[in-house]
Amino acid sequence: MAAEQDPEGRAAARPLLTDLYQATMALGYWRAGRARDAAEFELFFRRCPFGGAFALAAGLRDCVRFLRAFRLRDADVQFLASVLLPDTDPAFFEHLRSLDCSEVTVRALPEGSLAFPGVPLLQVSGPLLVVQLLETPLLCLVSYASLVATNAARLRLIAGPEKRLLEMGLRRAQGPDGGLTASTYSYLGGFDSSSNVLAGQLRGVPVAGTLAHSFVTSFSGSEVPPDPMLAPAAGEGPGVDLAAKAQVWLEHVCAHLGLGVQEPHPGERAAFVAYALAFPRAFQGLLDSYSVRRSGLPNFLAVALALGELGYRAVGVRLDSGDLLQQAQEIRKVFRAAAAQFQVPWLESVPIAVSNNIDEEALARLAQEGSEVNVIGIGTSVVTCPQQPSLGCVYKLVAVGGQPRMKLTEDPEKQTLPGSKAAFRLLGSDGSLLMDVLQLAEEPAPQAGQELRVWPPGAQEPCTVRPAQLCEPLPSLAESRALVQLSLSQLSPEHRRLQSPAQYQVVLSERLQALVNSLHARASP
Amino acid sequence: MAAEQDPEGRAAARPLLTDLYQATMALGYWRAGRARDAAEFELFFRRCPFGGAFALAAGLRDCVRFLRAFRLRDADVQFLASVLLPDTDPAFFEHLRSLDCSEVTVRALPEGSLAFPGVPLLQVSGPLLVVQLLETPLLCLVSYASLVATNAARLRLIAGPEKRLLEMGLRRAQGPDGGLTASTYSYLGGFDSSSNVLAGQLRGVPVAGTLAHSFVTSFSGSEVPPDPMLAPAAGEGPGVDLAAKAQVWLEHVCAHLGLGVQEPHPGERAAFVAYALAFPRAFQGLLDSYSVRRSGLPNFLAVALALGELGYRAVGVRLDSGDLLQQAQEIRKVFRAAAAQFQVPWLESVPIAVSNNIDEEALARLAQEGSEVNVIGIGTSVVTCPQQPSLGCVYKLVAVGGQPRMKLTEDPEKQTLPGSKAAFRLLGSDGSLLMDVLQLAEEPAPQAGQELRVWPPGAQEPCTVRPAQLCEPLPSLAESRALVQLSLSQLSPEHRRLQSPAQYQVVLSERLQALVNSLHARASP
Repeated sequence: MAAEQDPEGRAAARPLLTDLYQATMALGYWRAGRARDAAEFELFFRRCPFGGAFALAAGLRDCVRFLRAFRLRDADVQFLASVLLPDTDPAFFEHLRSLDCSEVTVRALPEGSLAFPGVPLLQVSGPLLVVQLLETPLLCLVSYASLVATNAARLRLIAGPEKRLLEMGLRRAQGPDGGLTASTYSYLGGFDSSSNVLAGQLRGVPVAGTLAHSFVTSFSGSEVPPDPMLAPAAGEGPGVDLAAKAQVWLEHVCAHLGLGVQEPHPGERAAFVAYALAFPRAFQGLLDSYSVRRSGLPNFLAVALALGELGYRAVGVRLDSGDLLQQAQEIRKVFRAAAAQFQVPWLESVPIAVSNNIDEEALARLAQEGSEVNVIGIGTSVVTCPQQPSLGCVYKLVAVGGQPRMKLTEDPEKQTLPGSKAAFRLLGSDGSLLMDVLQLAEEPAPQAGQELRVWPPGAQEPCTVRPAQLCEPLPSLAESRALVQLSLSQLSPEHRRLQSPAQYQVVLSERLQALVNSLHARASP
Repeated sequence: MAAEQDPEGRAAARPLLTDLYQATMALGYWRAGRARDAAEFELFFRRCPFGGAFALAAGLRDCVRFLRAFRLRDADVQFLASVLLPDTDPAFFEHLRSLDCSEVTVRALPEGSLAFPGVPLLQVSGPLLVVQLLETPLLCLVSYASLVATNAARLRLIAGPEKRLLEMGLRRAQGPDGGLTASTYSYLGGFDSSSNVLAGQLRGVPVAGTLAHSFVTSFSGSEVPPDPMLAPAAGEGPGVDLAAKAQVWLEHVCAHLGLGVQEPHPGERAAFVAYALAFPRAFQGLLDSYSVRRSGLPNFLAVALALGELGYRAVGVRLDSGDLLQQAQEIRKVFRAAAAQFQVPWLESVPIAVSNNIDEEALARLAQEGSEVNVIGIGTSVVTCPQQPSLGCVYKLVAVGGQPRMKLTEDPEKQTLPGSKAAFRLLGSDGSLLMDVLQLAEEPAPQAGQELRVWPPGAQEPCTVRPAQLCEPLPSLAESRALVQLSLSQLSPEHRRLQSPAQYQVVLSERLQALVNSLHARASP
């Protein structure tokens, strides 16, 4: 089945979304008679992003969808033939036409679980030629998804559990799919909703949004709505002319606030009335198209109080410029005073939403004790991950034909760990994480309560650990999003710090360390 | 026609790839009887990216494709109905079903031309409801394309015209389409090629790639190729066993380099032989899977010299770790000495390709006078634009029903310029850029040689300028990529600086300034 016919449509990657060297290597393997050698690759990252001590694994569902649909179409093979040398053996292209992922096995960290440097997010095994071809698309699907989920989880940790976080970064993303991926995985990481409608349609992410400045400034105040009448919320009784009702309330509000009744912009008020006529049960005012204090706020109050008379409650206000924290305090004060003055208690707690290039630092300020901000919209800084716009995942060969493989480059950072491996997560008696152990797949699993000798990477000496509990396979929950919350709660406070000098330990088993040593010795005679 | 059936397939955005507030505002406009009011929006950015003084406009073709295909399908409308309130008038959804862009007009800077703050990249006019709905997808399609094209142009300016630049960032992109967009627009901005096969297939970008470390480390040296024989390049005469021939050359090479013949890794050599059998006319060696000096280089020379005997010339070597500049000098020295020793002059000039997280600073070092590096692969830093991962384009309403509109927020940075406008680019007598003038669409165009009074934004006084030439519409060339070269050559050295304190001037005409003043006065009585 072609990827494009997938029910989730264009979000699936195509087989040719790959680096050309995967295809040239495929020919090399094929020419060497090794296309079907059994191979295993691991996909992992080398450092936690953003200076923190954790990352979240994400993108697995996209990978599964990609692998299920993986097949080179005739047009794909023809394009490859046009790029490779003209005298390439046609039998190679026949082989490409026959490929699918039916012999590929993927083991993975569950979507939303904690991931640490060196621990594989994916372990991909199958025929050498095919699993090599998968490198680039799998990296592409996992790296950014994991990065943005981690970024969103950090923002959630900063915001605390109460604030509502809205992702609104589609326009800042790397084109259409960057936006779709960002919306999906920032929801996974802990955001409440997204502005991205397609993410709602294709991925079930809750979507949210009300109005922009263009809506407000498009009204001059001289427009005549075709039907200005609004029926009461309860559905009984006659409708009222909402614009006229708001005009009456405007006089009360201006008198209460000490403003001249001419000061609030008539176009802004007309826009609020128009929006309230369309969404009487979900009226939100965007306050800063003109002056917040002298126009946006009195206009909002006039329309909200007019709606209130009909039994509707406004659902919020939004600010998109200026000192958001301070304005929120002032607006809340005005809401409280107006609630008392006009005897409408619900007005006190109308949610205040803010946006405007909010990054981690600005979010910390908005989330501080006593803040009156309720909803925070974040675009650029969740979607582009400006602190570190790439996770830098790699996909490395660890075994061929059952034999361990290791990249022994002179750059120690780029060396790999050989062999088909298993990862275990060791827990203390309180359920918190102790460390991850990487060992060879054929080694017996560690046992709870038993002492274990392990090697921190690069260490000269092993150390011992006695886990109270352990998990393998890592816990798989129905709801990946719930897993994120569980995962984060397992981190020690030290590892949950966003700039963490103390990294979580990923250690090697004794036999894995011995294999590393032996391969080093063999390569440096 | 559904976007998915577009020949370029999933690269086109869908109509629901938009922020929900576009749909809620659509209902607001519709309910207010204003859906078909004539409106005009401008898409622009407020600051040049990366601290420089220029940007390139890009993404226009993607926008045109999107606009041509724009239509809400039944499933899209049903999804919107599920998100909006249940008592929404069904006639609104009928209206949505009828929408297309047949009444939308877009004026744009040509793909690849210079763009400056405040000058519209797109001017979009048409029925208010439709042009509002287009905001998010157009921003999504233009912002990142322009950002990455500008980033690529900066990297090209640093590299100079001679170095070959390969974009290889697919795995670091924001999912599949982020990668496709990045590859396309880094080529537009001045890169020579991309590793991304899909960008070749769908967009005609030249693709390049050879082999990765996994290919090298997948060989142990004990593999037996099914057919080790290679025919001479000229096609005449008997074939030879390439592995055996390389083994003979290895002894000469090791003697020449003062290495033991056991030192070079046999698996690496087997990999090179396998690759050379598949690509005898395009053999490249990846030198750093083990030790460059003691393994990669002698193995490469052995295979290259064996190929050379058959009339084939190796096309390059690649390094992916360590001090790339210094290693390139050393490798060139070895090539020169071996060329003399073995009397194969072509070996002297075998291209040296490098990669490994190359950013602007590292590129400047690799491009310095005397560098022996010929080809530079750049991934993360061209694709993710880490210096500034978002251009921050905005899409602002400037006129409705022929009346100018202006956002007069208290944040001066966020104020907009009112009215339907035209932009002119004034040139000096040598063809270099003087400044861009924004004026109202109905004003007469500036004339070459005639003095013009203009307002720098925010200035207290107008200034005068006498352009020798001017261009409106901005020059449209068949090849957008050629336009990029022309565009960059028009910049003064000061504006071409990558961290430029001197920004290119975008100024207002007298009448536009007068309109701004009058709207300010009207809003602040």
